[in-house]
Amino acid sequence: MSVTAPAGFVASGIACGIKASGAPDLALVATEDGRPVPAAAVFTRNRATAAPVTVSRRHLLSTGGRAAAVVLNSGNANAATGQAGIDLSERSCALVAAELGCAPEDVLVCSTGLIGIPPPVSAITAGIAPLVAARAGGDGGGRAARAIMTTDTRPKQTVQRAGAATIGGMAKGAAMLAPNMATMLAVLTTDAAVAPAELAKSLAAAVEGSFHTLTVDGCTSTNDTVIVLASGRAGPAASSSSSSSSAFDAALAAACLDLATQMAGDAEGATKVIRVRVTGARDAGDAARAARQIAESQLVKCSFYGEDPYWGRVVSELGVSRAAFELASVSVAYGGVVVARNGEACAHDAAAVRAHLAQREVEVHADLGLGGGEASLLTNDLTPAYIDENMRTS
Amino acid sequence: MSVTAPAGFVASGIACGIKASGAPDLALVATEDGRPVPAAAVFTRNRATAAPVTVSRRHLLSTGGRAAAVVLNSGNANAATGQAGIDLSERSCALVAAELGCAPEDVLVCSTGLIGIPPPVSAITAGIAPLVAARAGGDGGGRAARAIMTTDTRPKQTVQRAGAATIGGMAKGAAMLAPNMATMLAVLTTDAAVAPAELAKSLAAAVEGSFHTLTVDGCTSTNDTVIVLASGRAGPAASSSSSSSSAFDAALAAACLDLATQMAGDAEGATKVIRVRVTGARDAGDAARAARQIAESQLVKCSFYGEDPYWGRVVSELGVSRAAFELASVSVAYGGVVVARNGEACAHDAAAVRAHLAQREVEVHADLGLGGGEASLLTNDLTPAYIDENMRTS
Repeated sequence: MSVTAPAGFVASGIACGIKASGAPDLALVATEDGRPVPAAAVFTRNRATAAPVTVSRRHLLSTGGRAAAVVLNSGNANAATGQAGIDLSERSCALVAAELGCAPEDVLVCSTGLIGIPPPVSAITAGIAPLVAARAGGDGGGRAARAIMTTDTRPKQTVQRAGAATIGGMAKGAAMLAPNMATMLAVLTTDAAVAPAELAKSLAAAVEGSFHTLTVDGCTSTNDTVIVLASGRAGPAASSSSSSSSAFDAALAAACLDLATQMAGDAEGATKVIRVRVTGARDAGDAARAARQIAESQLVKCSFYGEDPYWGRVVSELGVSRAAFELASVSVAYGGVVVARNGEACAHDAAAVRAHLAQREVEVHADLGLGGGEASLLTNDLTPAYIDENMRTS
Repeated sequence: MSVTAPAGFVASGIACGIKASGAPDLALVATEDGRPVPAAAVFTRNRATAAPVTVSRRHLLSTGGRAAAVVLNSGNANAATGQAGIDLSERSCALVAAELGCAPEDVLVCSTGLIGIPPPVSAITAGIAPLVAARAGGDGGGRAARAIMTTDTRPKQTVQRAGAATIGGMAKGAAMLAPNMATMLAVLTTDAAVAPAELAKSLAAAVEGSFHTLTVDGCTSTNDTVIVLASGRAGPAASSSSSSSSAFDAALAAACLDLATQMAGDAEGATKVIRVRVTGARDAGDAARAARQIAESQLVKCSFYGEDPYWGRVVSELGVSRAAFELASVSVAYGGVVVARNGEACAHDAAAVRAHLAQREVEVHADLGLGGGEASLLTNDLTPAYIDENMRTS
């Protein structure tokens, strides 16, 4: 159960022939009655915007934040595909709309896969009627979650409760695990009654604390999209009182964090999940910049693969991040064991550090000693398997 | 011949015991008579500044741009070493000065090696007297060039002429080849008579067009330093007429470019040298930003290792660079063969692209289609050998 857990939603997933392997590659999440409900989305900031992102953004704008369905394909990103790509995304929405009896603008669309490959027009257009016909509650959600996988090794699903309301979600996770496919997609549903503007605000906050705390290589996909639909079947969870509203926000944030954590755990090509924690920054923005500089450093990530506590690289990255920095104030710790203090090496339990770095989940903590700013990011080590997975597209 | 080619300079290189291997690890470049001459330097912008950078910057400032010698060690970066590190750098300069008969401020100092390791005080202080005693013209330069190597497989030296003047130089090159050691050091000498302010201007321009056009992983070392000394023995090459000044500038730029190119060619852990060329940017700044975004992309560099013309990743990186960007205006070419035009795939000779990518020196060229801005960078592919070299410090 995932997107079909909240009342009022159906889903499906089929193989339409985009993937040569014959694996499922076309998915649908829709309202039970095919009528639009409040919807919100967060899209990639990459300006090489994929066609489905352009079309979904336009649709959501024209409906004022409502949608009846999301159609998703894996195996082709429909990015850098020119007018043919836009045409396919628009046509996919129109075909779904015709089956459901809603307007084309009520349908949103997502794609994930390789960039710049001619769009799989016939596979998708032929697949939509059987896709919509197969929609169902219950395990329809599971079938949809499997159909959006690329190099994921397992589907990512979540169900959260907020009072009488339920939140369900599915994701495919390239954030850390499958940079080859380079896309993170997530669709969430809820039966809470939430107005479009509120929903957009809640989603933005939830994404900030979850998907945005993962980074693998600093590469932002052309297709990244997170969408939420709210059927309202469980009644006004968020509109009447501020306490129910914050309960809904918390549950939505928990759903996003659960999906993000599943991505981190499904990290193909990596041997470790690394938490990069920065404290003592001048402010939260500085802490985030410093954490990202460390987390995206090829050299730091190589060190973690080698289980080598080379804190000098961490300090060097801090020195080039745009965060306020004074070498003599910096300390660095691995798994809680401080190895450098006041900007230089200090006596420490080297065996404890080695034991910590040998684990699958490891932490590096840099304290800048300048203020109260804190931030935390998850990343992975840089491994030969990462290169192996990403060196060729075929 | 390198730094000893211009009249008025001597050099030496010895093993003082920093490197466990017993390889040469201490080098000197000095004026023949031990008297200060005009000098200029470009230092790393990393704020986790290594002790020798702090000390050299201070010395150059206090002399108003003059120096009599540069003492360099490999095998320990003397970075993140606190007051003990500063003390060692100051003491090294003072010991050299005592031997040469100049002031301590007339000596500059450089280090390269691991960060955060306690500084090798006794090895260096005991080594300086024999180092200075061994100074000589001729192959003294070659011995110095070998003593600053870390994971370099060969010394990097250059000699250029500008009218009656000569420019010599040596470098150790971590820019692309040895990110484990993470430092690029270069010392240049000339017998042209150039005033300190002019020399600083000429050096900044030369560095911009050479060392700054190399990038391996976006990591800026704590120790990067380029120094030039001008003995004046060949007379005023640059002060009287603008044409001789530009001849000197051109020769200094050629010397830096020659050293940078030798670094690129000595790229351990990489199988390819990749030229990233961006044209059609709104302006030169945008072109440089776009080229750097492509050149530092882990995914793009993986593709080159796989000899895979996955231009979609190039476009995706352009979409997140801070350069002005319109997908429909972009074209991408490998080795002159255009594979994408107007932001989408175009018919091309796939065999020609494959043949180009199989070479050791390859080129990717992105045209943004927006203006006249151009930039070019050299980088390497991301390989398992890079990880192997950087995963452990010992």
